[in-house]
Amino acid sequence: MARWPTDTRARLQAAATELYAEQGYDRTTIAAIVRRAGLTERTFYRHFGDKREVLFANEGALTQRLEEAVAAQPDGATMREAIDAGVGAVVEALQPRRDELVRREPIVASQPELQERERMKLATWTTALSGALVARGEDEATSVLAAEVAIAVLRVAAGRWLAGSAEGELAVVLRDVGEELRALV
Amino acid sequence: MARWPTDTRARLQAAATELYAEQGYDRTTIAAIVRRAGLTERTFYRHFGDKREVLFANEGALTQRLEEAVAAQPDGATMREAIDAGVGAVVEALQPRRDELVRREPIVASQPELQERERMKLATWTTALSGALVARGEDEATSVLAAEVAIAVLRVAAGRWLAGSAEGELAVVLRDVGEELRALV
Repeated sequence: MARWPTDTRARLQAAATELYAEQGYDRTTIAAIVRRAGLTERTFYRHFGDKREVLFANEGALTQRLEEAVAAQPDGATMREAIDAGVGAVVEALQPRRDELVRREPIVASQPELQERERMKLATWTTALSGALVARGEDEATSVLAAEVAIAVLRVAAGRWLAGSAEGELAVVLRDVGEELRALV
Repeated sequence: MARWPTDTRARLQAAATELYAEQGYDRTTIAAIVRRAGLTERTFYRHFGDKREVLFANEGALTQRLEEAVAAQPDGATMREAIDAGVGAVVEALQPRRDELVRREPIVASQPELQERERMKLATWTTALSGALVARGEDEATSVLAAEVAIAVLRVAAGRWLAGSAEGELAVVLRDVGEELRALV
């Protein structure tokens, strides 16, 4: 297990993802995850509430990056620039995790409860983005719409990027999907 | 209880929604729901898998309406026309249910598990819409993007319509939100 992360949290995530992929999410117990990681259940519960949360462990940090990036835009920035900065911060964090995310994708797709949780993660980003826009003085109704569509575009772009159906880095795929949306509406 | 629907399924839904609103979703048991409705638990389980499903009971029928409306468009219809027909069928079904949906909204908002389920319902519509577009011969990647954005717009419009922050019927609010999106992108 030398190839494994030394960080306890990442080690549990790696063990869980491996087992979910090998034997299915449903059939994987927390006991099996800690056995594979060479750790104890007590340690598991210090990091995660349940076996589902292991797959959503980076969500809080990503949401915070998004909010901070929007807030960090200068006063004169347009709403569009603020959105690009927020979504861009998420994209930058996802880019180096592509291999892990490609492995994670079919696991999430295999279980309705994980799909629901995944959609909720995106909803959290949408709420965070619209909240950060409103905090900049943007109109609330417009912010909600803009955030909803921006995260929908991110979702589509990430889907293409992970499926390998679109070439290039996530940032490039995202820009292309944005162009496509403009052409559509 | 003469004011209550005579249809068993609708009666269980009315009883559940009342109790969820009165005493909270968490504190409402299936035993309490059937007591309020004057029915048995056995009857409850003939209609719903659990107390969450009561709030999502019309979803399958709506998804089917959406798919059928898209499929029913003539061969020469544009993708835009097909989407408008599909979303329009959902809008038409939601319009007369406004009072019920206004009562339902804070219940769903009160529980993360219900918010997740609600997002999943919208995801189901997105998948149904893109699938119906692909079945008409539209490009898959474009269909996924168009469906994702169309349902995001529907979600925003329904939110404004239920909050009373936008005047008029849902169809009118939806058209306005669509115009706003065009101006945004």
